[in-house]
Amino acid sequence: MTSSRYTYLGPEGTFTEAALRTLPEAATRELVPMVSVPAALDAVRNREAGGALVPIENSVEGGVTATIDELASGRPLMIYREVLLPIAFALLVRPGTELAEVKTVTGHPVAQPQVRRWLERQLPEAQWESAASNADGARLVQEGRYDAAFAGEFAAATYGLHPLVTDIHDAENAATRFVLVGRPARPSSPTGADKSSVVLWLRDDHPGALLELLQEFAARGVNLMRIESRPTGGGIGQYCFQVDCEGHLADRRVGEALMGLRRLCAGVRYLGSYPRADGGRPQLRHGTSDEAFLAANDWLNRCFDGRGELPGEAP
Amino acid sequence: MTSSRYTYLGPEGTFTEAALRTLPEAATRELVPMVSVPAALDAVRNREAGGALVPIENSVEGGVTATIDELASGRPLMIYREVLLPIAFALLVRPGTELAEVKTVTGHPVAQPQVRRWLERQLPEAQWESAASNADGARLVQEGRYDAAFAGEFAAATYGLHPLVTDIHDAENAATRFVLVGRPARPSSPTGADKSSVVLWLRDDHPGALLELLQEFAARGVNLMRIESRPTGGGIGQYCFQVDCEGHLADRRVGEALMGLRRLCAGVRYLGSYPRADGGRPQLRHGTSDEAFLAANDWLNRCFDGRGELPGEAP
Amino acid sequence: MTSSRYTYLGPEGTFTEAALRTLPEAATRELVPMVSVPAALDAVRNREAGGALVPIENSVEGGVTATIDELASGRPLMIYREVLLPIAFALLVRPGTELAEVKTVTGHPVAQPQVRRWLERQLPEAQWESAASNADGARLVQEGRYDAAFAGEFAAATYGLHPLVTDIHDAENAATRFVLVGRPARPSSPTGADKSSVVLWLRDDHPGALLELLQEFAARGVNLMRIESRPTGGGIGQYCFQVDCEGHLADRRVGEALMGLRRLCAGVRYLGSYPRADGGRPQLRHGTSDEAFLAANDWLNRCFDGRGELPGEAP
Amino acid sequence: MTSSRYTYLGPEGTFTEAALRTLPEAATRELVPMVSVPAALDAVRNREAGGALVPIENSVEGGVTATIDELASGRPLMIYREVLLPIAFALLVRPGTELAEVKTVTGHPVAQPQVRRWLERQLPEAQWESAASNADGARLVQEGRYDAAFAGEFAAATYGLHPLVTDIHDAENAATRFVLVGRPARPSSPTGADKSSVVLWLRDDHPGALLELLQEFAARGVNLMRIESRPTGGGIGQYCFQVDCEGHLADRRVGEALMGLRRLCAGVRYLGSYPRADGGRPQLRHGTSDEAFLAANDWLNRCFDGRGELPGEAP
Repeated sequence: MTSSRYTYLGPEGTFTEAALRTLPEAATRELVPMVSVPAALDAVRNREAGGALVPIENSVEGGVTATIDELASGRPLMIYREVLLPIAFALLVRPGTELAEVKTVTGHPVAQPQVRRWLERQLPEAQWESAASNADGARLVQEGRYDAAFAGEFAAATYGLHPLVTDIHDAENAATRFVLVGRPARPSSPTGADKSSVVLWLRDDHPGALLELLQEFAARGVNLMRIESRPTGGGIGQYCFQVDCEGHLADRRVGEALMGLRRLCAGVRYLGSYPRADGGRPQLRHGTSDEAFLAANDWLNRCFDGRGELPGEAP
Repeated sequence: MTSSRYTYLGPEGTFTEAALRTLPEAATRELVPMVSVPAALDAVRNREAGGALVPIENSVEGGVTATIDELASGRPLMIYREVLLPIAFALLVRPGTELAEVKTVTGHPVAQPQVRRWLERQLPEAQWESAASNADGARLVQEGRYDAAFAGEFAAATYGLHPLVTDIHDAENAATRFVLVGRPARPSSPTGADKSSVVLWLRDDHPGALLELLQEFAARGVNLMRIESRPTGGGIGQYCFQVDCEGHLADRRVGEALMGLRRLCAGVRYLGSYPRADGGRPQLRHGTSDEAFLAANDWLNRCFDGRGELPGEAP
Repeated sequence: MTSSRYTYLGPEGTFTEAALRTLPEAATRELVPMVSVPAALDAVRNREAGGALVPIENSVEGGVTATIDELASGRPLMIYREVLLPIAFALLVRPGTELAEVKTVTGHPVAQPQVRRWLERQLPEAQWESAASNADGARLVQEGRYDAAFAGEFAAATYGLHPLVTDIHDAENAATRFVLVGRPARPSSPTGADKSSVVLWLRDDHPGALLELLQEFAARGVNLMRIESRPTGGGIGQYCFQVDCEGHLADRRVGEALMGLRRLCAGVRYLGSYPRADGGRPQLRHGTSDEAFLAANDWLNRCFDGRGELPGEAP
Repeated sequence: MTSSRYTYLGPEGTFTEAALRTLPEAATRELVPMVSVPAALDAVRNREAGGALVPIENSVEGGVTATIDELASGRPLMIYREVLLPIAFALLVRPGTELAEVKTVTGHPVAQPQVRRWLERQLPEAQWESAASNADGARLVQEGRYDAAFAGEFAAATYGLHPLVTDIHDAENAATRFVLVGRPARPSSPTGADKSSVVLWLRDDHPGALLELLQEFAARGVNLMRIESRPTGGGIGQYCFQVDCEGHLADRRVGEALMGLRRLCAGVRYLGSYPRADGGRPQLRHGTSDEAFLAANDWLNRCFDGRGELPGEAP
């Protein structure tokens, strides 16, 4: 049964697998590494898997464009969970290797800017060569091609290596954000600390178009968390926007903002509402709670009967 | 039966009576002149009349503050109709008087700035003295106190006077806007060429408060027709705003804007939706028609089931 | 010498004269009452007076339209000072009259709504008749036409009357704002607690025009203190706006906002910058001080030489 | 002499070299391929080269993050030119190879999504393997490792290959934008069809911060051409923005907008103003021309002398 299978951006031993294993339900699923983000997501689209965990944003490298572009095009998918994994590399070596002996190091190209300063300080003479993934780098160390690989500490066991140095990361607070993607269905239940994701296509590229788009959120007191412009493939200067905002589809202010965007934009793709990994709750502006929306709706209905103002109520 | 009675700002023979008589239903009502706007409106509040016609705006003098303040305070009332009356004065004299013989003229103080240039050109030597109303001025001419009065041509007969010159108005397009006010009930039916009136009290007087208020309209593509600030009586710098906007309460964009204002403001008093006297229809911005609102609502509901994007639909 | 003469809205004994006498320079000027605001201002325009004190705003009645309209049209004038006078009426009677004997009262029509509740409570049977001014009412009491007049306590002596009751005012914080108007010249010196006044004509009456106008202020962190729409005389729906904002022409943020309005609007009439009567100082938004404007200007100039970023400066 | 040397993202035979050769001055410079964008730019920083040509945006893949991040951090650099190169691949084979014989193809990973649909149609059975660059792919075909490589047609001669198929590109209008980067100095001269680039760091991450930033442009009628968020490395949710706008630093509206951003933002890095490769000229909103800015400035100066309104000038 495919819904018992989760794909992820492989190979085994990558941070993505580590992120996936932080989800309780991962314990009862078959976890299948895939060679690429599109492959991991297509397995979900084709009902070969119930979900896919893929990276979507890295605090050092920025948005993972393969993921964003896949979610924005092709058959619709939705996000149901997010996972935030602090970035910390281990320097994996074959057992017995000492730091002074490391002359060649490898790792995923994305890893390099995140360990560059550490390398300059600790191994200024070492040669860097890129590997297809961090896990692949570990495999190449196992095979003896390089002396050391940057990878997650958890990858050491898989490849029979020793984590010589751990917790390596140039930037404080470095983290990668992963999302659990599934086929479109009812969004995750609201928790009070949620976020919602959409892709927005502007109707026309007039000067203030992006401003208008942001105002649809601002007018309802919905805070933006991230905005990423992506080319639509229609030529230089043609973009769509992937936006994360605070709150859940079921929050009235979010619903009204999304309806406003739907009316304003050439296209809106709803990517889901899901619990925030950081647990942050929005600071609501006055008049934007569900209660305020419902009271206003009730008032409007009374206006239709000439009872907008209740007896004894004074402005 | 009181609903068969309409009060109006008297005395008889004023422009207000003329405006009232343009309404078809006036023919079947008892029309009662009152000494002041508050008196005309209180008769409605006290169920002594079914409606009251009062001036609310003059293209030369501006808002009629007595009317605006009465609608903004006290027991709620609603506007059901508006009447636009071009301003054109007649110079009323006792039969036989010739223009060269006119040494003293009278009229309502509001009339003076609207005929000043005509007076300077045609009767540079004439003395002006103010009367309590244009009709009262006519009465004073009848009594021989003044040689001529500026009033509506229709007032001549009432006072046995002769309209020596007609169609006098310094400003092109000068007009007065009157409203028919009644007790709160179901608003007039939408006609497609409607306007809506509200009074808005800002929550706090922070710098951008008025800007935020206007953005509630702009965010839904609702055009403002008039905005008038009025003191709340709470001291210099404390205002409320009387606003007219295009559209009817039953128009989705207007309803959403009003609900937004209700959430934003300290108070909103809905004064009604009614046919525009000028018959103008709004130029709808893309995505603000009722159809667009309903389609967006339908889309939102589908998002709750994971069906935001229909098969074959592409952004 | 005409500059030694100040006109004011008369007659003697009105609140306007009382406001004028709060100005230190009034002691050395010839103070001349005039029959109307236009007459007081025309004396300045015609160099028969150096200044004129006229009411511009009343916390109960709102803007004094005669003053606003005069400042907005005709030969330019400028505001150099403002005076805030708390509104408090005295009930003036002929010496010996007791409260129970008061059957008829008079006063300026504007006074009535400000003492109405007091009258209902204290003299529910008394008849009100309007006078041309509060001082004129006092004169009519002196002449025996009415039993009592509402006027400033200071008017008692002038008309040989007795202030039977003092400090009468229905609304708390009721006040009238007066302005000292002169021919255009260098504005008053900045004090740090200033306001500036302008009249703005919109270029065209498109929906968002007023919003754009307000955004010119908001974009530079300039707080609005008052906005009053006035008909331009071009027909219903044609307005200009009289706006007071915080700050002085010499404040960079105000200067840039005014230039922005000058570019945006069909017309801008600068009415002056002058000390705030309430002494209030603006709370500056980050980046809107003169220092911030000068630093940004300096930075821009350096950008022209490729030195936008100084050595050692990091974003 | 180093200013006679231009570096570029190598190796030889890439699109970057082709773009560089479209610049007239390239004919008189020594063109030096570098292994990476940072290497190409560091050569300029270290005065080993006078300029560097690097890709900054691809209409299929989006922003070239290595370039954007390098421009946003480290020692300042400026952009002096941009080059737009249509993307069109040739399928390069060893002379004599026919299409039916192609079983393995290679190319830069970025090339793959741009030829995927062509491959599916023409060579559905062919295996794709990524190469370090398109030129490197050509070299590997020369060496016999693969049957065919996607690269620029211009690369064929360098590697002794035959362009079997030319003008391959899945997307219409696909193009890459390159920028010529140098050390900070006077910007390129205004041409009337210019763009300006900046990096902006928000002061704090409050909800409306991005909206405020965009309003600085909008308030002066400056059109945005591109906005790209990039992580600052300070953790998930911490971004800076790389923005391209219409116009030149020397345009008053651009200068005022940049000063506004300088006041608003925690940091602004000016990256230069340079001729638009597409030659497009901005459609100026009313009141945003240099003439309008200068006239407003002149008016403001006159206001300081009480001569805001010139004789005969009426609003």
